[in-house]
Amino acid sequence: MTLQNDRLLRALARQPVDRTPVWMMRQAGRYLPEYRATRADAGSFMDLCRNADLACEVTLQPLARYPLDAAILFSDILTIPDAMGLGLYFETGEGPKFRHPVRTAAEVAALSAPDAEHDLDYVMNAVRTIRRELDGRVPLIGFSGSPWTLATYMVEGGSSKDFRHIKAMLYGDPQTLHTLLGLLATAVTDYLNAQIRAGAHVVQIFDTWGGALSTPAYEAFSLAYMRRIVGGLIREHDGRRVPVILFTKNGGQWLESIADSGCDAVGLDWTTELGDARRRVGERVALQGNLDPNVLFAPPERIGAEVERVLASYGHGPGHVFNLGHGISQFTNPDHVTAFFDALHAASPAYHR
Amino acid sequence: MTLQNDRLLRALARQPVDRTPVWMMRQAGRYLPEYRATRADAGSFMDLCRNADLACEVTLQPLARYPLDAAILFSDILTIPDAMGLGLYFETGEGPKFRHPVRTAAEVAALSAPDAEHDLDYVMNAVRTIRRELDGRVPLIGFSGSPWTLATYMVEGGSSKDFRHIKAMLYGDPQTLHTLLGLLATAVTDYLNAQIRAGAHVVQIFDTWGGALSTPAYEAFSLAYMRRIVGGLIREHDGRRVPVILFTKNGGQWLESIADSGCDAVGLDWTTELGDARRRVGERVALQGNLDPNVLFAPPERIGAEVERVLASYGHGPGHVFNLGHGISQFTNPDHVTAFFDALHAASPAYHR
Repeated sequence: MTLQNDRLLRALARQPVDRTPVWMMRQAGRYLPEYRATRADAGSFMDLCRNADLACEVTLQPLARYPLDAAILFSDILTIPDAMGLGLYFETGEGPKFRHPVRTAAEVAALSAPDAEHDLDYVMNAVRTIRRELDGRVPLIGFSGSPWTLATYMVEGGSSKDFRHIKAMLYGDPQTLHTLLGLLATAVTDYLNAQIRAGAHVVQIFDTWGGALSTPAYEAFSLAYMRRIVGGLIREHDGRRVPVILFTKNGGQWLESIADSGCDAVGLDWTTELGDARRRVGERVALQGNLDPNVLFAPPERIGAEVERVLASYGHGPGHVFNLGHGISQFTNPDHVTAFFDALHAASPAYHR
Repeated sequence: MTLQNDRLLRALARQPVDRTPVWMMRQAGRYLPEYRATRADAGSFMDLCRNADLACEVTLQPLARYPLDAAILFSDILTIPDAMGLGLYFETGEGPKFRHPVRTAAEVAALSAPDAEHDLDYVMNAVRTIRRELDGRVPLIGFSGSPWTLATYMVEGGSSKDFRHIKAMLYGDPQTLHTLLGLLATAVTDYLNAQIRAGAHVVQIFDTWGGALSTPAYEAFSLAYMRRIVGGLIREHDGRRVPVILFTKNGGQWLESIADSGCDAVGLDWTTELGDARRRVGERVALQGNLDPNVLFAPPERIGAEVERVLASYGHGPGHVFNLGHGISQFTNPDHVTAFFDALHAASPAYHR
C-alpha cells in the first residue's frame, strides 16, 4: 500500500523531504485527557495493552490532535519478560515490578524465549488493527526494549536507581548475565520480526538504561546484543526497507559505535548536541531527537526558540527526524504541544530548501 | 604543619607519587557498622552533622579501617539552602526534602546568602576538630554542592527524576534562575573559603545533577557558576596550594570545558574511560575516578580485575587520584572494600615507576 506521508521513511533513509518529520516518544499517553478516559475504562494498564481495539484507539489519539508523521504502537516495553512468566504488575506511582525477579544462574537457566506470534499475539493483533485503521496515512513504528534494559527490570524486580543486583551479576557472574542477554536478544529479534510481519514499517529499540554502564560494559552487555538483533531483523518487507532506530539514553559518548551497529538511525537524548553528533557520524546514519521534554513546561511563546535551536544544531539537509530526547511527561499541557508543532512546522521547511 | 601523607596533594598537582592516592566518595557512611552506631546515638542526620565531635568521629571511621589517602568532611550537600531558611528534613527512604521550595521570582528575591562563618559555624567547627584529630596524617577535603545542584533541590523541593519545576524555570524564566544561581555561587564561594580558612586542604564541588542538562544549558546554568566559584576561591593557604576538584556526574561529554574552568582536577563517573579522558585533556588537569561503585558487590576475587582495568586505562605517570565514580552504596560489604584497597595498593606502584 502506498503511504500518504512517507517523510519519516525518507528521512531515515537520508533522502530529501519538504520538512523535518516528527514523532514524540510516549506520544500516546497520560498527558492526553482522551487517553486517561480510555485508560479508566480499560481496567489495568496491561488490560489496555492486551485489547487490540483499545490499544489502537490510544495509538491514534495523538494523530487526531497533532500533525505527526508517524504512529507508534501503544504497548509496554516489558511484554517479553511478562510472557516469560515473571509476573509483571504496576504499583501506583512506583512503575513496573515483577513478582518473580531472576537473580541466579538456575533462575536464568529455567527461562525460555516466548514465541512472539503465539505468546504475544495480543501485540501482533494490535499492530494489524492499527495498520488497518491508519489506512496508509502515516507509517507505524513498532518497538522493543533492548536486552540490557529488559534484563535490568528482570534482575532488579522493577525500576532501580543503582542497578546493584544486575551489576553484582555483571561483575560477579558475567557468564550468567550473558546467557540471559543472549536469550533476550533471540526473543527481541523474534518479537520485532513478528511486529514487522504484522505491519510495522519501522522498529525502534529502547535502551533506556544503557547509560548506566561503563564504556566496555556498554559494548559487551548492551550494544553487542543490539547489534545481534539488528543483524537478525527482517530488513525488507512488502517491497520496502524496514529501518531500525537505536536509542540509548545517556549514550552520547558512544555514538560512533552505535552508528556502526548496522542500524539506520540513532536516537539521541538532549544532552548531546545534534550538530556535534552529525559531525561525528558523518553520512552513516540518520539522527533522531532531541528536544528536552521539559521545554514543554515553558510558556508556549518560549517553546519555539528551543525548537529552532535544535533544528539549527542539526543544520540543513536530510537525515533528521525530530523527536523529544525522552518520553513526554504526563504533566505536559497538551496546548503547549500544539505550540511545539506550530513552531516546528513553521521553521523546519527552511532547512530543506 | 607537615603532612605525613601528601600523595593526594602531589597527584592533584600532577607530581610524581609512589602509588596512586585514593579516597572514596561517601567513604564515611551507612555501609560501616560503626557509622550506623554513631548515627543511632546522634538523633537525626542533621544532628550528627551539627555536632563537631560526632561529625569528626564519623569522618575518621573509614581511616581507621582502610589505607585511605584523605579524609573528607562529614556533612550534607544541602547545608547552604538549609541555612537560607528552606527547612531541610529527611524522610526515611526518600532522601532530602525542603519544607519551603523556591519556585517564583518573588521567592528567589527574598533569599539572601548565609554568612558561612556565622550561619554555618557548625561546619567550620567540624573542620577544625577534624584537622586537630587528624594531626597531619592525611589531608582533609572540604566540599559543597554546585549552584545548579543546590538549586535543583531548592526548586523541586527534594530529589527529582525529571527536574520539571527547575526546567520550567530554566526554559520559561531563565533570568530568575540566573538570579538564584548567582546568589548560590556567592554563597558557595564564601562557604568553601571558610572551610579552607578552617583547615580544608582541598575542596571538591559536587555537581550531581549537571548531567541532566543539555550542552548549552550545562554551560550557562552549571559550569558558568562553578567557574565563577573557582575564580573566587582562596588558592593558597598556610603556604600551600589549595586544589579544587570539579565533579559533574554524567558530565563526560563536557570534559574539555570542565578542564578549562580553572580547576586542578576533574572527577569522572565510570561511564567515561580514564584513558580517553586523559587524551582529551592532556596536561591541563589531574583526573579523579572512576570505578563503578557496584563493582564492590562482586565477590572479592573479582574486584581486583576491575581495579586494575581502571589503573591501566589511566596508564603510567602522575595525575591520577583513584576514587569511585559515585558514592559508595550503603549496601556494600566492608570486607569487599578491604579487597578493593588490597588490590589497588598491590597494583598501582607499577604505574609510578
